[in-house]
Amino acid sequence: MGEFAPTQSDRFTTMPPFQPLAAADRARLAEVLTRIQHGSETLIGYPCNQLFDYSDLYPFLAYTINNVGDPFAGSNYQLNTHDIERDVVRDFAVLTRAEPESIWGYVTSGGTEGNLYGLYLARELYPDGIVYYSEDTHYSVAKSLRLLHARSIMIRSLDNGEIDYEDLEATLRIHRDVPPIVFANVGTTMKGAIDDVRRIQSIMDDLRLGARYVHCDAALSGMILPFVDDPPAWDFSTSIDSLSISGHKMIGSPLPCGVALARRRNVERIARSVEYVGVLDTTIGGSRSAFAPLVLWYALRRIGRDGMRQVVQTCLATADYAIELCAKHGIRAWRNPHSITVVIPRPSESVVRKWQIAPYRDIGHLILMPHVTREMVDRIVADYLEAPRPASIRCATSAGSRFQSAPPPALRPSHPPQE
Amino acid sequence: MGEFAPTQSDRFTTMPPFQPLAAADRARLAEVLTRIQHGSETLIGYPCNQLFDYSDLYPFLAYTINNVGDPFAGSNYQLNTHDIERDVVRDFAVLTRAEPESIWGYVTSGGTEGNLYGLYLARELYPDGIVYYSEDTHYSVAKSLRLLHARSIMIRSLDNGEIDYEDLEATLRIHRDVPPIVFANVGTTMKGAIDDVRRIQSIMDDLRLGARYVHCDAALSGMILPFVDDPPAWDFSTSIDSLSISGHKMIGSPLPCGVALARRRNVERIARSVEYVGVLDTTIGGSRSAFAPLVLWYALRRIGRDGMRQVVQTCLATADYAIELCAKHGIRAWRNPHSITVVIPRPSESVVRKWQIAPYRDIGHLILMPHVTREMVDRIVADYLEAPRPASIRCATSAGSRFQSAPPPALRPSHPPQE
Repeated sequence: MGEFAPTQSDRFTTMPPFQPLAAADRARLAEVLTRIQHGSETLIGYPCNQLFDYSDLYPFLAYTINNVGDPFAGSNYQLNTHDIERDVVRDFAVLTRAEPESIWGYVTSGGTEGNLYGLYLARELYPDGIVYYSEDTHYSVAKSLRLLHARSIMIRSLDNGEIDYEDLEATLRIHRDVPPIVFANVGTTMKGAIDDVRRIQSIMDDLRLGARYVHCDAALSGMILPFVDDPPAWDFSTSIDSLSISGHKMIGSPLPCGVALARRRNVERIARSVEYVGVLDTTIGGSRSAFAPLVLWYALRRIGRDGMRQVVQTCLATADYAIELCAKHGIRAWRNPHSITVVIPRPSESVVRKWQIAPYRDIGHLILMPHVTREMVDRIVADYLEAPRPASIRCATSAGSRFQSAPPPALRPSHPPQE
Repeated sequence: MGEFAPTQSDRFTTMPPFQPLAAADRARLAEVLTRIQHGSETLIGYPCNQLFDYSDLYPFLAYTINNVGDPFAGSNYQLNTHDIERDVVRDFAVLTRAEPESIWGYVTSGGTEGNLYGLYLARELYPDGIVYYSEDTHYSVAKSLRLLHARSIMIRSLDNGEIDYEDLEATLRIHRDVPPIVFANVGTTMKGAIDDVRRIQSIMDDLRLGARYVHCDAALSGMILPFVDDPPAWDFSTSIDSLSISGHKMIGSPLPCGVALARRRNVERIARSVEYVGVLDTTIGGSRSAFAPLVLWYALRRIGRDGMRQVVQTCLATADYAIELCAKHGIRAWRNPHSITVVIPRPSESVVRKWQIAPYRDIGHLILMPHVTREMVDRIVADYLEAPRPASIRCATSAGSRFQSAPPPALRPSHPPQE
């Protein structure tokens, strides 16, 4: 790519009165970079794949690229990558088993925006609808529901993190006069649990709830399930209405990004024609990154379907390795089917800090992303065993055993570790 | 910086099964880059400063950097630039004449998110409040109001693009039982007009409207007004509650970004404590770019206050040059005080396309950003004179004169071109 890109100083006859960066400022930047580099070596608690190299794309960063507006509507701002973005939307439509022509979508600034978009569409279609979501849903969803002023009810979760179908059914039954908007987790944040979308739909069928909306938050698992054997039904092959997948998670990106996909017929209802940007603006943002579509387009083409399958299988194998190693040392670790998230009893604060674990109540998790090696797993397990457990957790345990947080009993018979 | 950054292939023992990019894909990327490069040479209708070079920062793009959550609350995800982001928020607080300690803020994905944030805060404080905004307000605001399900009333604009204070006063008077939320434009998109915030506040004082909120959309002008003599009062030196400034406009950036600032006391009311990311999450997004704060931090340090003053004065001088050149050729061009946006009669479609003009009804505008030279102005004026005006505009004119869209009469006495 480099040969096509002029250096910035060549491009303009007038340059801004830039001063050289002060020595202290240069040192500060170097220090931040070193800290980040250091942090990258012990990253096992967040679903951010670090195996990427987008330096081929840096020449684009010399320009004020901007994908303002709808990628399918065209824009008179020429410095865009709308055509690349349309390719990416099509790629994800295919991966999520949709008819590409029936799907509208765009590249978002991350999973939150994609979920907000789905909920926004749902609320526009059913202004009086009630949003149902499980207690294991990511905290940003409650934030988005507040933003949208949408009515909502939190449903209990099963021990493995899935939505409690009985609680959902009972709650839907009470509100049969109101269109349900179900926010389904396809891979919960803490436990990687997948809500059974077909079962949810059949509950609504039984209650004759025809006017309804289902959105899937597939932030991480949306790029896992297309590459496993016998995945559960969760995508556009069921009658879901919209979904959100993150780009910086399984694919990996230095900039948060994602893809929102929705049935085109629904989107057309909220389209607003705006003359002065020359676009039908159906996105949530105004100006949008034109770099993120390049990142996703490039990664999908360099890694391909077979490559992704290979990556996903490796991650699942590493997850099983972690579970076995934990078991060997008496740590009760487990995972849901098709998930690379291994749930462990909450580690000590030093382990949480060093390995950047996201703890919640009495659990923590390891996320076996593509960059996580077995050697890293060995090291974190060693650290886990060495550091004392948090006092609050120790106090809360009933017996004297070192590790209390066992896998939910229900999980063992029905969800044996798979893959 | 380069010396501190390992190459990506050095960092990991396992690399993904990346294939070389196919020749056709390489060609496609090169073609997109060439198109963007071509578009960058005729960019005069959008407020995107092209004079920047952030290649010093590219080493950060080797990492999964992410500023998830509140920049002031800390996070257990270590690959962040929250400290740099806090510096940027402080820099902008100083530029907008706030006591830095009284202000909370964060780096957004663009002006739209900053405006949505201000309106969200306002609606949380005054759930029954009515949002007042002028008809010259950016279209994204109507979109955000819909998202927020907020009550709103559009107020007429004066010919120069400012809000019509009489219409505002009369409308506020009818709704004295409801807290007003005024969305003020500090530089409208089409005409660069600045709503007089003090006058708006005095109208509310007269009506004894004590429970109220004022948000300023200072997307472009927020980085102009701190660098002109005798700017109108618009910033935190008045009693406004929040404001939004874009980063990719006057400063320039390959990625849309901006800054949202708000009175800390208001933000604290909507803070939600969320344990598992270890942050008090008061932002709208979840994952947020950690690169955007680096861009703003770097640019502000390399250009400095004196540099920005020099850049702004040059832009204003180029704007006056454009107006004079237009006048010489019988084109009625004008601008608002302290604005680098020159309003012209709507050009022909070929000029709109080539120079990426954002037309609206019978007007268009040139935005004299730092990269726009007098030579570019000469070329667009020559193109303007050569290309026939759109038929619809020609038909709508009453006399046979070639250029009909005169500056609003009221503007001439009260707003002579300044600087």
